[in-house]
Amino acid sequence: MSLVLRSYWRSSCSWRVRIGLNWKQLPYDIVPVHLVADGGQQHSDTHRALNPSRELPVLLVDGEPLAQSVAILEYLEETHPDPPLLPRSPLDRARVRQMTEVVNSGIQPVQNLRVMQRLGREYDFSRADQVGWSRDWIALGLTALEQLVSNHGGRYSFGDSVSWADLCLVPQLYNARRFDVDLTAFPSLTAVESQLESLPEFVAAHPDQQPDAA
Amino acid sequence: MSLVLRSYWRSSCSWRVRIGLNWKQLPYDIVPVHLVADGGQQHSDTHRALNPSRELPVLLVDGEPLAQSVAILEYLEETHPDPPLLPRSPLDRARVRQMTEVVNSGIQPVQNLRVMQRLGREYDFSRADQVGWSRDWIALGLTALEQLVSNHGGRYSFGDSVSWADLCLVPQLYNARRFDVDLTAFPSLTAVESQLESLPEFVAAHPDQQPDAA
Repeated sequence: MSLVLRSYWRSSCSWRVRIGLNWKQLPYDIVPVHLVADGGQQHSDTHRALNPSRELPVLLVDGEPLAQSVAILEYLEETHPDPPLLPRSPLDRARVRQMTEVVNSGIQPVQNLRVMQRLGREYDFSRADQVGWSRDWIALGLTALEQLVSNHGGRYSFGDSVSWADLCLVPQLYNARRFDVDLTAFPSLTAVESQLESLPEFVAAHPDQQPDAA
Repeated sequence: MSLVLRSYWRSSCSWRVRIGLNWKQLPYDIVPVHLVADGGQQHSDTHRALNPSRELPVLLVDGEPLAQSVAILEYLEETHPDPPLLPRSPLDRARVRQMTEVVNSGIQPVQNLRVMQRLGREYDFSRADQVGWSRDWIALGLTALEQLVSNHGGRYSFGDSVSWADLCLVPQLYNARRFDVDLTAFPSLTAVESQLESLPEFVAAHPDQQPDAA
């Protein structure tokens, strides 16, 4: 199976998938897609033909393009179940998926670059207003996630095994720091992060380790 | 198994789950949670204890609260696989999940009530500006979905079997009309919708059929 990931070093959704691929020990090539240069390379004809949503990541599986990070992670779990990134029981899996969606649909879409860009371009939000917008949505979502991890977490976000919730957590906390979110309110989340950040699969997926890191 | 759905008649995420439960022929009780009355009943202590994200829907499975519509649909698929709402092959499943996420994380979170409310409350967006904000995000996301359904659809969004992509499509098109999106640009989507809207599982899940319909 040939795997090519179209990725941007600081894209949190690309980052999730990089960790997932590393966790499954699947080799992949990276094709960098710059979200700002050239007006955003995700808007190119080449990229749109692979993902009409004009977003990252896209995973090419033997040339077949798959988009949406959660859909890609589900695909990897179904085709490469070991080592797992989901627990076994349906109820536990639902809890991990709930945490995943708190970030995937609850936080990231409202604070991402395209939203900030539109607020600036069409509604004259200053850079400070754009950052404030994103900061407050991140804090709101992390407040919910802190409660869930406090209830269900252990060494990691859900119990003592690494799961998708962790793949979403680490990039989201990185974004939180970029937007000056006060993380002292989220002790469970930062405790889990400190367990995760030295794992080799997470180290290799970090933005600073990417070929397009600036 | 006792199933209780905390739902709001016009919540598109609640609506997806209602269709899913109907499709699986699972009986459930509805507890209405009003998203506007009392400052939003999703902010009550009772509801927050069940879902710290303060959102709908929440499905109580023998009293255990599950939140996030996609996590709930995955749980229902794992515990009640027949009749299915996902195709069989991992690649096909990934395509349906991609379409699902185009709506779930790509459109709905950026155009929903809490975003519009914050734009009005904190940034003085007029009602017309709030509607314009949501309208344009819906149109952008539907443009991508139209391409995916044009590529992969048949009688329904993905091939000739009803899937989660359809459960997401119908409520999102309802929202599109509320926000005056021009749907003539989306002939594949409206053609699929016309096939879906007479199915009894979809009819029974429609907002107008809910106990809290206003």
